[in-house]
Amino acid sequence: MRAFKTPVSTFVARRNALHATIRTPALLAAGALRARNYPANGYPFRASSHFLYLVGAALPSAVLWLSDGKSTLFIEPEEPGADLWDGPKPSFDSLRETLGMDQVRDLSELESAIEAQRNSIATLPTQDAASCELLSRCLGRQIQPGSGASLKDGAPDAALADAMIALRLRHDDAALEQLRWAASVTAQAHLAGMRATRTARSETEIFGAMMGVLRTAGHEDSFGPIVSKNGEVLHNIRHDNALADGDLVLADVGGETPEGWAGDITRVWPVSGTFSPTQRAIYDVVLAAQCKAIERVRIGVRYRDIHETAKRVMVQGVRDLGIFRGEVDGLLERGAAAIFFPHGIGHLLGLDVHDMEDLGDRAGYAAGRTRSKAFGDCYLRLDRDLEPRMAVTIEPGFYQVPAILASPAYTAAVGNDLRRDVLAKYADVRGIRIEDDVVVTQGDPEVLTKEVPKTAEEVEAIVQSGR
Amino acid sequence: MRAFKTPVSTFVARRNALHATIRTPALLAAGALRARNYPANGYPFRASSHFLYLVGAALPSAVLWLSDGKSTLFIEPEEPGADLWDGPKPSFDSLRETLGMDQVRDLSELESAIEAQRNSIATLPTQDAASCELLSRCLGRQIQPGSGASLKDGAPDAALADAMIALRLRHDDAALEQLRWAASVTAQAHLAGMRATRTARSETEIFGAMMGVLRTAGHEDSFGPIVSKNGEVLHNIRHDNALADGDLVLADVGGETPEGWAGDITRVWPVSGTFSPTQRAIYDVVLAAQCKAIERVRIGVRYRDIHETAKRVMVQGVRDLGIFRGEVDGLLERGAAAIFFPHGIGHLLGLDVHDMEDLGDRAGYAAGRTRSKAFGDCYLRLDRDLEPRMAVTIEPGFYQVPAILASPAYTAAVGNDLRRDVLAKYADVRGIRIEDDVVVTQGDPEVLTKEVPKTAEEVEAIVQSGR
Repeated sequence: MRAFKTPVSTFVARRNALHATIRTPALLAAGALRARNYPANGYPFRASSHFLYLVGAALPSAVLWLSDGKSTLFIEPEEPGADLWDGPKPSFDSLRETLGMDQVRDLSELESAIEAQRNSIATLPTQDAASCELLSRCLGRQIQPGSGASLKDGAPDAALADAMIALRLRHDDAALEQLRWAASVTAQAHLAGMRATRTARSETEIFGAMMGVLRTAGHEDSFGPIVSKNGEVLHNIRHDNALADGDLVLADVGGETPEGWAGDITRVWPVSGTFSPTQRAIYDVVLAAQCKAIERVRIGVRYRDIHETAKRVMVQGVRDLGIFRGEVDGLLERGAAAIFFPHGIGHLLGLDVHDMEDLGDRAGYAAGRTRSKAFGDCYLRLDRDLEPRMAVTIEPGFYQVPAILASPAYTAAVGNDLRRDVLAKYADVRGIRIEDDVVVTQGDPEVLTKEVPKTAEEVEAIVQSGR
Repeated sequence: MRAFKTPVSTFVARRNALHATIRTPALLAAGALRARNYPANGYPFRASSHFLYLVGAALPSAVLWLSDGKSTLFIEPEEPGADLWDGPKPSFDSLRETLGMDQVRDLSELESAIEAQRNSIATLPTQDAASCELLSRCLGRQIQPGSGASLKDGAPDAALADAMIALRLRHDDAALEQLRWAASVTAQAHLAGMRATRTARSETEIFGAMMGVLRTAGHEDSFGPIVSKNGEVLHNIRHDNALADGDLVLADVGGETPEGWAGDITRVWPVSGTFSPTQRAIYDVVLAAQCKAIERVRIGVRYRDIHETAKRVMVQGVRDLGIFRGEVDGLLERGAAAIFFPHGIGHLLGLDVHDMEDLGDRAGYAAGRTRSKAFGDCYLRLDRDLEPRMAVTIEPGFYQVPAILASPAYTAAVGNDLRRDVLAKYADVRGIRIEDDVVVTQGDPEVLTKEVPKTAEEVEAIVQSGR
């Protein structure tokens, strides 16, 4: 598979677009390497998404300085003798050219270079303590590792965040190319996972087949992969269970391109190669909800309404199976959807798999909109009217979560209209989620992840072909 | 491949052995989860090796408290509602039993529980800022993320470090079982990498094949994998070069078992399936040095002497090819070995791939021994007399590092006895290293990594079989 590389002109254009909208200078840190078990043994470096968006290169400890329409990159100078171990590094001049910067300078000059503007500089959250220390020192105020909760309306940091959000919400052509690539590699990983299943004795073997495909394409993980027969554990990070015919495998896995863009696909398939009738029935309900939701991905549509559509299709389908009793409208009002579908229909997708979640709900929620207080709906990560070139996931699910089903807090309002005797017949369905990556266009949405099969028959055929 | 799990009795025995040697209470942090691009998207959690050695479970933010012969584990309580997303967690009581602890308690009780002994508590370095903050608060003194440089002889932390080193230097049966497993999985990864080479167009594809094997076995990376045709860049973390016949691939990759134990193998193989005569000649020199060095791995032998043996075989071999001129003794005295072999012959292997490097040279260097000042020798990570059950790597190499060959600082002493005209014929050899994992026993050393081929013919046969 070919690799895609964003041209330097795109990064220059992105920086210029930001320059045009911000009124204060800005300082954005790439982030620092982090030690794993000892200092020389670090985690793979992942630069901040804001930095990657504007610079395109993962340079540990680098800082981008935007002021007066000029872009200056401050980087760590090469340590004496480092070329013995790391090979020759590009010179400041050659980096300036490759990255289209106005200047590249030594990081040790940063503090004095920006001192005069120190009280008016905006910045955005970084995730590591060392970068926060550097920023705190440069800006003369406390910068905490964080989630954007510290962004206060009206403050320079919030204005910078809003400017970045405005840019990053609508993906440019290069961004869409990266997202298509991430989606395509992720789709290949799912196909490999399906094909590895019939001979796999444990989740780990399916996981390994999928990871092999991602790494072969040069992709990292865009998030901690989920490959589990316990699909009802939503944040499951283990994949060491033995598998048996009758189990379903839920795989929620995403590749990340070398420039940092995310894929994110969920599929569920039967270990035996064939869904049981009960599994198939629920699968088709989730699939119907997912397809209906994707159809609704159009310019101007409010994303929350798509969430509501999926909830309605789910409740209708589950009622038609006899698990709920009563009118769909009434069931929805009483919170029936969240009993089996307790999360949101999806999220923004971009350089982060939950794009710009480091800015809190500022990116996901339009001005004036806030999270619902209702169980289920409160986990909706996106409530904006869709705009062209936005990328979102669409991922309804059905889960039998013991902590939900056992708790009157979540089920009392539905009461006996949740027919537990009927539900008991579906005991072999622990968790089913179907997720695609979708781009809003002028017409029908562009489904980036359509390479990976979705109907029950298609999925079964791929699993069976792996024998 | 079957998975290996250390019984709880081993962890109890390790803790009891530590209790028997320390004179102060000790507080050991597992370490905290670290955010990757936003707080909910973290790096895969890797607990501190000291914690893993004594507890065996990777519990984020947990702290082990050792006092008066009792072991107490303080852990974060479950957040309300976390079971909705993470599934049910084991109760404190069930954890106490599974982990063989005297007590399991809520982390919020830690400070008051240890307050009375606060001024006499020892601890060891941790790598993340959050754990350092917690330890600093509990101990009433500044604990920095670190490399053991802060361990001062005579202080309680240094005594605790020495006690841990005494324990961890000689591996117990369970540790050896984990190391054998890591070595075996790592060997399978190298075989897969070799087999993937003839059809691979880039380093990434070989890398992906190797990662697939590690993950399929449930292993993480014990360090940032090196898979490169530029073997002369010793700390090479890129693997995106195109490959062509004539290139050599250097793969230095290690698996890490779920309990945290490391494998570490380097092999070099020809992309074409056949070494050129010049590549083969150098390969055989490195192989001879490596085999001779492994033979010397015996109880009581000083590891530095094995390093010297390898240097001598290397210089002799390179001289026999005509690249050096003169007597081997004289060449060695003038620093000839480091021109092509600028690193140490290996390192301790255990829970860290450079075992206990977080304690600085305290683990690697016997009391009274210090690093050499000579280029090359100064990078030797281990200078102890070998003891039974120690695990070490043996990994000589030959590299044409431009920054070394171009610098009189490294080459002047050898002067014209480095015959650059002869060396020029070996331009297709950029870097060759051969590395195995070896355990010191009563008799011949146990080579954990012997499953992966090593002679040039064996390596060629595997590469060719992948066509």
